[in-house]
Amino acid sequence: MSAAKLPGKLLGVGVGPGDPELMTLKAMRALGEADVIAHFAKAGRAGHGRTIAARHVRADVIELPLLYPVTTELPRCSNGYRDAMGDFYEAAAAEVATHLEAGRLVAVICEGDPLFYGSYMHLHARLAPRFPTDIVAGVTGMSGCWSAAGMPIAQGDDVFTVLPATLPEGELARRLADADAAVVMKVGRHLPKLRRALETSGRLPRAIYVERGTMADAVMVPLSAKPDDDAPYFAVVLVPGWEERP
Amino acid sequence: MSAAKLPGKLLGVGVGPGDPELMTLKAMRALGEADVIAHFAKAGRAGHGRTIAARHVRADVIELPLLYPVTTELPRCSNGYRDAMGDFYEAAAAEVATHLEAGRLVAVICEGDPLFYGSYMHLHARLAPRFPTDIVAGVTGMSGCWSAAGMPIAQGDDVFTVLPATLPEGELARRLADADAAVVMKVGRHLPKLRRALETSGRLPRAIYVERGTMADAVMVPLSAKPDDDAPYFAVVLVPGWEERP
Repeated sequence: MSAAKLPGKLLGVGVGPGDPELMTLKAMRALGEADVIAHFAKAGRAGHGRTIAARHVRADVIELPLLYPVTTELPRCSNGYRDAMGDFYEAAAAEVATHLEAGRLVAVICEGDPLFYGSYMHLHARLAPRFPTDIVAGVTGMSGCWSAAGMPIAQGDDVFTVLPATLPEGELARRLADADAAVVMKVGRHLPKLRRALETSGRLPRAIYVERGTMADAVMVPLSAKPDDDAPYFAVVLVPGWEERP
Repeated sequence: MSAAKLPGKLLGVGVGPGDPELMTLKAMRALGEADVIAHFAKAGRAGHGRTIAARHVRADVIELPLLYPVTTELPRCSNGYRDAMGDFYEAAAAEVATHLEAGRLVAVICEGDPLFYGSYMHLHARLAPRFPTDIVAGVTGMSGCWSAAGMPIAQGDDVFTVLPATLPEGELARRLADADAAVVMKVGRHLPKLRRALETSGRLPRAIYVERGTMADAVMVPLSAKPDDDAPYFAVVLVPGWEERP
């Protein structure tokens, strides 16, 4: 741990989609140089990002696990959930700030890319106005998925869009029809609705269902060939563009 | 060079947005193991991807530069341009196939991510049906841009979209208004039109203009503060989402 370099610095470090080899050289260096390494995780579980980065966490580093207070106990759209998460991010930012005020280099492990739908953003928004920050871009989960599937996703003048499956069916269908290429996230229990929206929009024949896309036990199947509607929260559906391919 | 391992294998290797440290460990290993390293470039210029990967290209590797036949001589939407590019990709695929048939591991250097708006996709579409292929996902140019800008781009249930600035003004405005977060690519001479579309859609106050986003001499400025409409082809405009940030 380095001493008395005031103020410290906050690093959002993207560690990529899952395969530890999809970490960047810069992420590896940042973790190696950090005084403190923080990561988000559910209480009682190893954080996925922490697992990806495991071999680059020095034995003498200060580790700071940031444990989500609620996961499934409260509905995600409830005020109770939102308040609990807001309080959690405030407390996490305060804890990180203590290390920054002591002049430490704090690296926050981020699955995928730090500023693309990542929990790190909640720390960044609270701390970037007060402390020097730097971001190490990472390979996104969706890049990991279409790469593992060997599926070109968008080309040329394609309009590409990322949609949460939480949207109402009509809006999903409209947006799917309106884009050349799409990635639908947070599929989970929304799969039956998403399937109907893909059918309405004419995109079902092109849609690929992907589960654990960047893991050894990945599932990738044309959605039209998937016999059931069971899907975990983090499953995605890819709709490739580039229809005029040669 | 390895001998007689038939058939060869095609690797699309993402080398990230520009900073050589934003290459992944897997990309580094793939380039180190390759028998042949191909890259796309304009005739008479070092390819940008080749420059990023330079320190990982072995002296004894077979190098295969794939030189674009036309760049500015013909309008990009003309049949002449399209035919010339089609012929070029056919010839490039045939050249790569010769090495694959000889059992060689051919790595194609790709700026950013191989299957996200990349030239490699033209080789992949032609060769994947005939040869084993593998993709090494990379950090995209757009991730490089918002990371360099330290700007959270999308969070939660945001709808995120990627738009080419080549779209007609009305369509640009409609799509910008319809998304929570957007990246507009290929800005170049379309900047005056894009500026109007951002104004119409109410997004101008949030729009950030980025030029050479991942280079040391990057330009990042609120678009509303950019005094002129000069922009290179590869400039992008970022419109961050996450409006309800805490």
